[in-house]
Amino acid sequence: MIPTKRVDHIGIAVKDLATVIEFYEKVIGIKCTSIEEVPDQKVKVAFLPCGDSEIELLESTDPEGPVAKFIEKNGEGVQHIAFRVEDLPGKLAELEAAGVRLIDKKPRRGAGGADIAFLHPKGTHGVLLELCQRDSE
Amino acid sequence: MIPTKRVDHIGIAVKDLATVIEFYEKVIGIKCTSIEEVPDQKVKVAFLPCGDSEIELLESTDPEGPVAKFIEKNGEGVQHIAFRVEDLPGKLAELEAAGVRLIDKKPRRGAGGADIAFLHPKGTHGVLLELCQRDSE
Repeated sequence: MIPTKRVDHIGIAVKDLATVIEFYEKVIGIKCTSIEEVPDQKVKVAFLPCGDSEIELLESTDPEGPVAKFIEKNGEGVQHIAFRVEDLPGKLAELEAAGVRLIDKKPRRGAGGADIAFLHPKGTHGVLLELCQRDSE
Repeated sequence: MIPTKRVDHIGIAVKDLATVIEFYEKVIGIKCTSIEEVPDQKVKVAFLPCGDSEIELLESTDPEGPVAKFIEKNGEGVQHIAFRVEDLPGKLAELEAAGVRLIDKKPRRGAGGADIAFLHPKGTHGVLLELCQRDSE
């Protein structure tokens, strides 16, 4: 089985990036290193590395985007968790062969230059789960 | 400022530990290393280390416990995120002096022998946040 190396990031849906970045910087003590817009997912993403993982704060750029819809339904909060794998295409093939339901059967490009794929949330016990691979490791 | 070293763990509320452990072991590829009951919080906790962080699966042992109440309201899902700090009493004093609302002004004992404290969820933008300190680091 292709192993999972680490929690790559925790994606948190927020209404206003600047306010929540300030909270994590001043209260938790982790720093925002960059902000990127991901038009495909209709979000602006702020990256706050922490240990070998990262907090990603997600602000919607479109009232019809997935993060806006998430906040409308649930309020601000954890929208997804991403696990880092070494061979994402291989991992997805392995999961499909095992009958695991996937949203993305092939990797697509996500924030921070990562290749990503989401598992189907019906099968993940309440947590939206992403798998991702990065060139850096 | 006392820094945060890493994401110590992600606490996920689940209905049935055995079912969800099997999911994370077979699909995500991380292993449950131990299970502990924490009577104070009315939960059984399964620990699944991943990189320098950990997934903690939480099953309520009491229909009136916080995890049971969480599931009743939200369904299964991420219940809290914990950040590791080196000096928890110092960090709490620092936050209180800065006017940050805390549930625990002093550390109490949590799962896995950690000293823990929760921030007041009204001030954390939708995520229940825990700070924790461990003897191991």
